[in-house]
Amino acid sequence: MQNFTFYNPTRILFGSGRIADLAREIPANARVLITYGGGSIVKAGTLAEVKAALAGFTVFEFAGIEPNPTYETLMQAVELARRERIDFLLAVGGGSVIDGTKFIAAAIPFVGDPWDILAKRAKIGSAIPFGSVLTLPATGSEMNNGAVITKRISNDKLAFMNRLLFPRFSLLDPTKTYTLPPRQVANGVVDAFVHITEQYLTYPDDAKVQDRFAEGLLLTLIEEGPKALQTPEDYAVRANLMWTATLALNGLIGAGVPNDWATHMLGHELTALHGLDHAQTLAVVLPAMLQVRREEKRGKLLQYADRIWGLREGDEETRIDQAIERTRQFFEALQVPTRLSGYGIGKDAIPALLAQLERHGMVALGEHSDLTLEGSRRVFELAA
Amino acid sequence: MQNFTFYNPTRILFGSGRIADLAREIPANARVLITYGGGSIVKAGTLAEVKAALAGFTVFEFAGIEPNPTYETLMQAVELARRERIDFLLAVGGGSVIDGTKFIAAAIPFVGDPWDILAKRAKIGSAIPFGSVLTLPATGSEMNNGAVITKRISNDKLAFMNRLLFPRFSLLDPTKTYTLPPRQVANGVVDAFVHITEQYLTYPDDAKVQDRFAEGLLLTLIEEGPKALQTPEDYAVRANLMWTATLALNGLIGAGVPNDWATHMLGHELTALHGLDHAQTLAVVLPAMLQVRREEKRGKLLQYADRIWGLREGDEETRIDQAIERTRQFFEALQVPTRLSGYGIGKDAIPALLAQLERHGMVALGEHSDLTLEGSRRVFELAA
Repeated sequence: MQNFTFYNPTRILFGSGRIADLAREIPANARVLITYGGGSIVKAGTLAEVKAALAGFTVFEFAGIEPNPTYETLMQAVELARRERIDFLLAVGGGSVIDGTKFIAAAIPFVGDPWDILAKRAKIGSAIPFGSVLTLPATGSEMNNGAVITKRISNDKLAFMNRLLFPRFSLLDPTKTYTLPPRQVANGVVDAFVHITEQYLTYPDDAKVQDRFAEGLLLTLIEEGPKALQTPEDYAVRANLMWTATLALNGLIGAGVPNDWATHMLGHELTALHGLDHAQTLAVVLPAMLQVRREEKRGKLLQYADRIWGLREGDEETRIDQAIERTRQFFEALQVPTRLSGYGIGKDAIPALLAQLERHGMVALGEHSDLTLEGSRRVFELAA
Repeated sequence: MQNFTFYNPTRILFGSGRIADLAREIPANARVLITYGGGSIVKAGTLAEVKAALAGFTVFEFAGIEPNPTYETLMQAVELARRERIDFLLAVGGGSVIDGTKFIAAAIPFVGDPWDILAKRAKIGSAIPFGSVLTLPATGSEMNNGAVITKRISNDKLAFMNRLLFPRFSLLDPTKTYTLPPRQVANGVVDAFVHITEQYLTYPDDAKVQDRFAEGLLLTLIEEGPKALQTPEDYAVRANLMWTATLALNGLIGAGVPNDWATHMLGHELTALHGLDHAQTLAVVLPAMLQVRREEKRGKLLQYADRIWGLREGDEETRIDQAIERTRQFFEALQVPTRLSGYGIGKDAIPALLAQLERHGMVALGEHSDLTLEGSRRVFELAA
């Protein structure tokens, strides 16, 4: 096990009916900006429920935060918040809305161009406090301090983290996920799955608890993911998925172990250039990545084959191949294609993807920092 | 899954050599009171290392916090802290020292008799901030807000919790556990094991992640516990045990699921009247408790038999009996006796134990609040 520091002060309010508890979590007399995406929370009634719970506060709204939230959109919210002297933000939505709200929280008091927070890793001295009401289990943003923001004008999709950017609270009501479209449910399962593999499918490092926790989360996704599509209003299924997605990326299973994240870095460029959903890019890249990195990941791939897929027969190569194939089949069964061709993208797209990786400095990726552009090229080719 | 609120702001600094990082975690100019137990941290050099790391602070010491820390001893520390205007406490030791320090932290600013915090559940308005350097993995006190304190004069052993009593940080260096006596290592494994079963061996409640996490912790204890006794200086083993014991009682696996804690309540009276180590009382009570409660716990006992002990053959009764027997054997193999007779306590002691339970209001225990004094009597008799 590696040395680590673990800190996560986000308060989780989990369960049905918890929106009524919102007012207690926000400082009295706060000027609150509710941030959200499209109309789904309006249609589902969640926005009205949130506003009713905040009856005693001065409330503003900012709508229109898109999937893969953009700097361009978020800066409009920053201007509104500065103008209206907002002192608390409340994100209502999925990971994109929460990620975007983290950027808004950091950008409001920032002096200079807030894009520098991402592009130049500029220091953040303060941030506006914020909470979230999660409606889409997927990214884990509701219980971590990271975010990914896209600059539309330059096709940059960059990540940042800061200790000031943990949500003060996140409210997770599984019933608010009943009305999600199947594509978003499936994407959420894939996203959480790959968050786990990025922290688990590396090399054995004597971290037995982290391994067992990661395996417990993967098994839960495999058991519950398909059920969420079949019986959308099964509370237990939705509750298990929601808590799993949060725990998949709240720092716990990644503490003290090697981390990979190469699949995410390659995936980000697929979204930036071709507009794929984030989870779709992960479903494409992961199986190919595991094949290309099978030697580096051998020990963990065999453990994954055994403990997740129950593969104990045959030689090592067979078990590894089968484990990767079962992973692919799991994604495909959720209706998430796992090949570039499934999204109409040909091999001719690969040079531009590699150029993007190079431009973003993504030339030594993975848990050994040894996945070069040549390695990434092989991953994209195998994913074709 | 039940509704829950999860909040745990304790910062964990985990790994070898982390004591050097202590100074960064304590407010500048703090007047620090180091609290500890007997001479083991002096002999092992840990106290000197901690004091060297705190070279820039005004430091006081309070030694002599005993196992099952007493109100009588702790009040001496409270007087010292008030006199010297202490504004930060640093517990160096195991769960007893940390529990005791939580009481000291709450008692310093308390108006009136601080025993009321336990006996009358008196409200705490503030507490002195504190951190810990853990030297004995067992109780989980390093990452929760609860404590158990004993009043010697009246044989009362009572628990309390408060949101103000999370350690600001806890420093977990596995190498500091190398010199622990085998009895304390074994006790720590049993203590963590029973913390988990109190939150896991109840009834099925569709909480798949909590179950998988609890099972992962139990499996790690079963794999690593005996190794810690055989090869005391194996870093990976000690690291796994230390992180497991912390996660066994930091609120995570108990969130959203039924909790039992009857074994602890019966065990507390055994310590209060007969002076057994806390873990010894749990090793005695748990196997008997599981037998007495086998109908109420049937579903979870079968899951435990399957996933923890690999028992999949035979009828349900056989599998449950075997799972309980394997639990008993695990404790015995760690040299922790699992019968009252193993500690020289006869059946004649039972009426006084029941009288204690009654005096403390422990007459409706367990996840269904239906373990009466008659049920507790059967548990003690079966444990004889």
